[in-house]
Amino acid sequence: MNLELDRYGLWEGINEVIVTTVSLDGKPNAAPIGIIRREGKLMVRVYNGSQTYSNIMETRLLAANMVYDPVLFVRSALSDVDDDVFKFIKTDNGEDFPVIADCNAWMLFEAEFNSENTVLVAELHPVTGTIRQQEIRPVNRAFNAVIEAVILATRYKIFRKDKYLLQIESYSNTIYKCGGSTEKNAYDLIFRLL
Amino acid sequence: MNLELDRYGLWEGINEVIVTTVSLDGKPNAAPIGIIRREGKLMVRVYNGSQTYSNIMETRLLAANMVYDPVLFVRSALSDVDDDVFKFIKTDNGEDFPVIADCNAWMLFEAEFNSENTVLVAELHPVTGTIRQQEIRPVNRAFNAVIEAVILATRYKIFRKDKYLLQIESYSNTIYKCGGSTEKNAYDLIFRLL
Repeated sequence: MNLELDRYGLWEGINEVIVTTVSLDGKPNAAPIGIIRREGKLMVRVYNGSQTYSNIMETRLLAANMVYDPVLFVRSALSDVDDDVFKFIKTDNGEDFPVIADCNAWMLFEAEFNSENTVLVAELHPVTGTIRQQEIRPVNRAFNAVIEAVILATRYKIFRKDKYLLQIESYSNTIYKCGGSTEKNAYDLIFRLL
Repeated sequence: MNLELDRYGLWEGINEVIVTTVSLDGKPNAAPIGIIRREGKLMVRVYNGSQTYSNIMETRLLAANMVYDPVLFVRSALSDVDDDVFKFIKTDNGEDFPVIADCNAWMLFEAEFNSENTVLVAELHPVTGTIRQQEIRPVNRAFNAVIEAVILATRYKIFRKDKYLLQIESYSNTIYKCGGSTEKNAYDLIFRLL
């Protein structure tokens, strides 16, 4: 099992992925979330109030999508993504479940949890998955800075504190120096979606 | 050519890789350096005074090694790496050239430059390369933080300003929260090598 997790890129620590879920009435959702792997166990922490939270409550399913598209991280964190971002796979019991059509890999999990509080802490049990495309991806500091800026942007949207805006702006140099057009577009999009 | 660069992970922007070089008397060297790709051209900037600089001056060759090992980034930035990190490949004219044995991919370049100043700015022309292992690697914020901390550590070694130390220390939370043992070991190693 651990080898299989490695192959899907779910390493020890927190893996930042796009989590897809679906509501009981079939509406797909995407959000950037960390999949925690510690001592062979996979966990996820999801805050009450989010669509991801209520979807997991309803279906007890979620998929981790491994993607390198910074724009998708921004859009799924700060707004809704377009429907054509998803494709639907069939689960074992014949239901449709959304994954990111253009991901490098996805893994579907059953979420096991006991209580629902402010934070849903669920253990994840792999159900199935697909590796679509393995790649070589060296470090791009601008890509990494977009991820940090997105996290700050979600905090800013909740707390509206200027310190988060200033921190987001502090990444501008790195993004314009080290980024390609994708990273620059993603960064600009953050400000439009705040 | 651009598609081939994509396949090797050398995308638009700055790609942080381990650059390997060799001196005329055959001693290999490794250092983390950014490979810049802009408008289809590949460039590298290397500071005078480094071993990488004098090796490129002597041989006009360098290899970009795509790796995900944070410990290797730390060690090659702040000290010498062990000889068993390298393996030697044969260049077209039969010479031995070092690459990182355990890399995911390497690409050998001829460096074209006109003048040698404080900074060597060279255009890179691909000679040959090998893709050893493609993978799925989602974002790990701790891995990214180690890379940022390494950059600050190289500045601290030159300028000895406390502000760099404080910035390095500011990554501790992210590294211990999001990292696996590899990232934590790499981070701890930074302080031992300062």
